[in-house]
Amino acid sequence: MTGKLTIIGLGPGAPELVTPAAASALAEATDIVGYGPYVDRVPFREGQRRHSSDNREELNRSRHALQMTSQGRKVAVVSSGDAGVFAMAAAIFEAVDLGDRAWRDLEIEVVPGVSAMFAVASAVGAPLGHDFCAISLSNNLKPWSVILDRLHAAAKADFVISLYNAASKARPDHLAQAFDVFRKYRTGDTPVIFASAVSHPDQKIDVVSLKDADPSRADMRTLVMIGSSMTSIISRPEKASWVYTPRFRKMDLA
Amino acid sequence: MTGKLTIIGLGPGAPELVTPAAASALAEATDIVGYGPYVDRVPFREGQRRHSSDNREELNRSRHALQMTSQGRKVAVVSSGDAGVFAMAAAIFEAVDLGDRAWRDLEIEVVPGVSAMFAVASAVGAPLGHDFCAISLSNNLKPWSVILDRLHAAAKADFVISLYNAASKARPDHLAQAFDVFRKYRTGDTPVIFASAVSHPDQKIDVVSLKDADPSRADMRTLVMIGSSMTSIISRPEKASWVYTPRFRKMDLA
Repeated sequence: MTGKLTIIGLGPGAPELVTPAAASALAEATDIVGYGPYVDRVPFREGQRRHSSDNREELNRSRHALQMTSQGRKVAVVSSGDAGVFAMAAAIFEAVDLGDRAWRDLEIEVVPGVSAMFAVASAVGAPLGHDFCAISLSNNLKPWSVILDRLHAAAKADFVISLYNAASKARPDHLAQAFDVFRKYRTGDTPVIFASAVSHPDQKIDVVSLKDADPSRADMRTLVMIGSSMTSIISRPEKASWVYTPRFRKMDLA
Repeated sequence: MTGKLTIIGLGPGAPELVTPAAASALAEATDIVGYGPYVDRVPFREGQRRHSSDNREELNRSRHALQMTSQGRKVAVVSSGDAGVFAMAAAIFEAVDLGDRAWRDLEIEVVPGVSAMFAVASAVGAPLGHDFCAISLSNNLKPWSVILDRLHAAAKADFVISLYNAASKARPDHLAQAFDVFRKYRTGDTPVIFASAVSHPDQKIDVVSLKDADPSRADMRTLVMIGSSMTSIISRPEKASWVYTPRFRKMDLA
């Protein structure tokens, strides 16, 4: 039996944001591998084995998935959002790169998904309508000085910025430091979005201004987005405001 | 009748990458609005009206969609990829912001999709596995000097970079100038990905090195991705190489 490894982005949470490609790949798998809460999102299927592991176990999990694939299993590794964004796809390929040469002959497919960042954007309007970047604030994997340099560069160059891993118990002050960086380059009324559990029933999204942005609002499940100098709010009577970053304004008003 | 406007990302092209949420929204619409080739991707439905327009018509198209929604129609505005990324969602909200105050009371929903950038990444491995940014090279909507500043900032801060609108007849030398910027900060063997029609039957993806990257390879449908200093190639005998940007290497080897 020839094995196959499929790395699947499950989307942000809502079943209607799981692509048919992801659903098919999950149905064909003999083994489902991933962080527990993501494995739990995969519909139960008779005879399929489930291998849940802890959040910090990406490389060990990757090796396990590759070993099972070598043995002829059809393995599905699942991530939330898009599997290529701060998620399992890079971990799998890194394990291949550092591991057994025979793993390079395996069939490996990545099925893209709806990323958390774009789900958050769609929930509030179109804040990522112009040049943007995504930065992880986790310094488990890179020095904090590199992260600070990137925050300065992104703020100065006026990108809309999505912050992943914005908060954790191990680094309670990182987000506060990030906001301090943005305040050097952006005005106090720049829109900041805190979004948790987007597309889940318990979705919670707050749009505040940079001057009022409270870092303690974020927890491990929160994505934080900071607008560019162009990002605008459309206020609506008795309804949630929309946030968007224009593409056309200058031309239109010219 | 109460109108509704839904802005829908159709994904990169393959039907199996259209989310169920997008398919439902398309099925409920009375009117499909968008750039011709994207409207053509929507399955035909008896009684549904189709309004195709040219690529440059985003703001007029937005106003037309908002007017129809005001009249009680169920309007679906379609984009390729994710509608929030250099696409129709920002155009619609900009039209709302600049237009009739009554438009702020309309029901507007954005359905996120699988973006071209993540589809390209999944097709070659996981090049967006670490901090990344997306920049449009089109100077229809912003001065070229701003774009150059952003390219410098992104290259210097070592982001993986996705270039949208990388080439057009009106600006044949922009991509060449962008490559010149990257060559100031990155080594010649940095991976560069040219991807056209990703997930379509005529998909074409080339992975080259920065020193060999030929700007004339890109046309209007090409997305160009430039690796960071960490982006690596996994070569495989007689098979296409994989490209990924590691998250863990430093920690793992420490």
